[in-house]
Amino acid sequence: MTNQTDPKTRVDLLVEPEWLIQVEPSVAALSGQAVAVHDGAIVAVLPATDAQARYDADEHVRLAGHALMPGLVNAHNHNPMTLLRGLADDTPLMVWLNQHIWPTEARVIGPEFVRDGVELAIAEMLRGGTTCCNENYFFPDVMAATYRRHGFRALVGLPVIDFPTAWAATADEYFDKGLALHDAHRGDALVSTCFAPHAPYTVCDASLERIRVLSDQLCVPVHMHVHETAQEVEESRQKYGQRPLARLDGLGLVNEWLLAVHMTQLTQAEMERCAQAGVTVVHCPESNLKLASGFCPTHGLHQCGVRLALGTDGPASNNDLDMFGEMRTAALLAKAVSGDAAALPAAQVLRMATIEGARALRMDDRIGSIEAGKRADLVAVDLSSLETQPVYDPVSQLVYAAGRHQVREVWLDGRRRLRHGELVDMDVPGILARAHAWRERISAGS
Amino acid sequence: MTNQTDPKTRVDLLVEPEWLIQVEPSVAALSGQAVAVHDGAIVAVLPATDAQARYDADEHVRLAGHALMPGLVNAHNHNPMTLLRGLADDTPLMVWLNQHIWPTEARVIGPEFVRDGVELAIAEMLRGGTTCCNENYFFPDVMAATYRRHGFRALVGLPVIDFPTAWAATADEYFDKGLALHDAHRGDALVSTCFAPHAPYTVCDASLERIRVLSDQLCVPVHMHVHETAQEVEESRQKYGQRPLARLDGLGLVNEWLLAVHMTQLTQAEMERCAQAGVTVVHCPESNLKLASGFCPTHGLHQCGVRLALGTDGPASNNDLDMFGEMRTAALLAKAVSGDAAALPAAQVLRMATIEGARALRMDDRIGSIEAGKRADLVAVDLSSLETQPVYDPVSQLVYAAGRHQVREVWLDGRRRLRHGELVDMDVPGILARAHAWRERISAGS
Repeated sequence: MTNQTDPKTRVDLLVEPEWLIQVEPSVAALSGQAVAVHDGAIVAVLPATDAQARYDADEHVRLAGHALMPGLVNAHNHNPMTLLRGLADDTPLMVWLNQHIWPTEARVIGPEFVRDGVELAIAEMLRGGTTCCNENYFFPDVMAATYRRHGFRALVGLPVIDFPTAWAATADEYFDKGLALHDAHRGDALVSTCFAPHAPYTVCDASLERIRVLSDQLCVPVHMHVHETAQEVEESRQKYGQRPLARLDGLGLVNEWLLAVHMTQLTQAEMERCAQAGVTVVHCPESNLKLASGFCPTHGLHQCGVRLALGTDGPASNNDLDMFGEMRTAALLAKAVSGDAAALPAAQVLRMATIEGARALRMDDRIGSIEAGKRADLVAVDLSSLETQPVYDPVSQLVYAAGRHQVREVWLDGRRRLRHGELVDMDVPGILARAHAWRERISAGS
Repeated sequence: MTNQTDPKTRVDLLVEPEWLIQVEPSVAALSGQAVAVHDGAIVAVLPATDAQARYDADEHVRLAGHALMPGLVNAHNHNPMTLLRGLADDTPLMVWLNQHIWPTEARVIGPEFVRDGVELAIAEMLRGGTTCCNENYFFPDVMAATYRRHGFRALVGLPVIDFPTAWAATADEYFDKGLALHDAHRGDALVSTCFAPHAPYTVCDASLERIRVLSDQLCVPVHMHVHETAQEVEESRQKYGQRPLARLDGLGLVNEWLLAVHMTQLTQAEMERCAQAGVTVVHCPESNLKLASGFCPTHGLHQCGVRLALGTDGPASNNDLDMFGEMRTAALLAKAVSGDAAALPAAQVLRMATIEGARALRMDDRIGSIEAGKRADLVAVDLSSLETQPVYDPVSQLVYAAGRHQVREVWLDGRRRLRHGELVDMDVPGILARAHAWRERISAGS
């Protein structure tokens, strides 16, 4: 029997991009490849000619001039804050927080604010090629439900903080509500949970110890702001007689489950300790710049062997959820900070925004690269426009020249979410109307 | 006689944006304003209700949800290098220059390369809201003709460098050809010329003195890379016994005609000297980051009273001509470098990209703000998309959240160049075909 007479296998989708951006085992732009998708999963990555012989696809998408890459993983978010985007920019950090952000949140925070802000964020992320995020805000139940309803992939943090908020009043209430939500999402393929203690300076030893035990028992990550500013480090030295990372280490939290966000203040010994312990550092370059927090030494961390992921931080301190912009800033900034124009090359930053983010979120069995067996989170970027021509190296163009508006097609879990740059299944007018209503309410100060 | 019976004045164009971004005397977003344009000039800025009563416009453009701002001024370019965009990124500076950029330029540089690269750049700039640039490359005659032919506003540098190139072999030839081009463009409203000695380390005292005399006589700016890297400063100390800026000062070049580009290495005394002398510093933040050159102390310079403009640098070291990206990076980076989250606010960076750039290029009588009597270089940015909602402060959204793709309408000298995001009078397929052909030739190494 010859190849021609073999019955073809039916699949839902066959995508043939100009370049396939291979992330594992290493970053490369491959020509002439196709991706076959069925039941939301990638069933094969193979030469396009073979794919046509082997598969009979319900939908066959040819993308001339496009690069197909894994969906981007935004590893640190406070997405309800989309509704505060651009409020009181360019004010000193403590004025911004104390006089603007916190008083506004105190007035408006609640399930509706969280739901509407997350919906706006999902729409923005899908348009920009982000298909997974790591969420850290109050009302995680509302966040989880909103991500679930919109079929978006998220790790939702269970907040823990030493003072009462609209979400919980006591440590016990934070834990009880958090654990109930964790149970509710056990086995959910799209939305899972982790612990999100706010920061070493806002969470006491007792709660941190409790988190460490639960993280071990439940096998869930711990997502925390750590060493964001020099002031935080100095205050810890005064209060605890040690730097925050040392205190966390004493409590057993410096381990492979820790996602340490920001980390702008680090000694060589701390970097080596993070490498040895398997900590992931989540780098948020634009937030660190805007809030004048400091510079995360990404080149040094990488040289030590520390795992690095990438995040935008909240859209009130950035002011967007643009992972293309964040990749570019991360790559550019690492060079200036290390004094080495070869530091953090495009290929490495692309891994931070895909497979390394997935690994940090414990989702690398499912996402982060385009490989058979993984879920089909796929993003097609049109590199044929003036702004990214000529193309010597598609990976370089994606990181240094492309904008998120060049994202044209997005599939999440095999479901088409963006077609020719347009959201296909979200109520954009409704989302915009609700954002407008929140703006009116917040501006009025009522 | 009542208002109603006054005959209306005929104008070519009336634009009514949601917000008019006023740049002079200070930055503000005004609602309910209109701009009347006739014969390429702004004839009035006035309340929209008054405009309708007073003017009869051939074209009346209402732009709900849009901010109308002056065309952006990119104050430092090497635009033919669009054709090298993304070639050999992430290599150390000297490897990049010696093994990739310079050998490639040596093979391909000539009138066709310059013309095709500038055409690609013009298309990219117009799409991104840039309507004026300050050019520094070889074959300034070809550059000037190309900008002129496409109706683009440019200050074209007359190159001077101490070694032979495809453009000129000796100092005399650089000056003769440069001065001939200067004469040819005298009185040209769109394209004018300035001196563009490459850098202190590549131009001898004799040529610099000649430039100083000619700059005085002809009243033209001097556009030069100065203090780009620490290495350059150290080499000058060894060779001349003084830092480059001190050497230029001794030659009489530190004056109000000097556009000193990059300036990452500065003492407090040097900053004060620049302020006193009226020097403009052209800040190119993304290039400085990517090439690991250092950090220009923009906050300190501003506090000293030094004029600051903004540029992208060449698209081989950036890799785009995106002034929205450059504004954002400038605003973010200044905060981190100065340790002050209030440094270089959005309003100030918007001035750097408009009126301060125009002033540096000696074009502020014509462009840089939306005021009666100026030429109509106007850019409309759609802030109604998800990525820039909600709008608390349009200026903040323009700098921190908007992308260049949100530029929807562009007029240059009153002529419509972009309509609903599409170039109206450029041969985009031809530009792309030529870029592709250059890529093939350069990649082949022939």
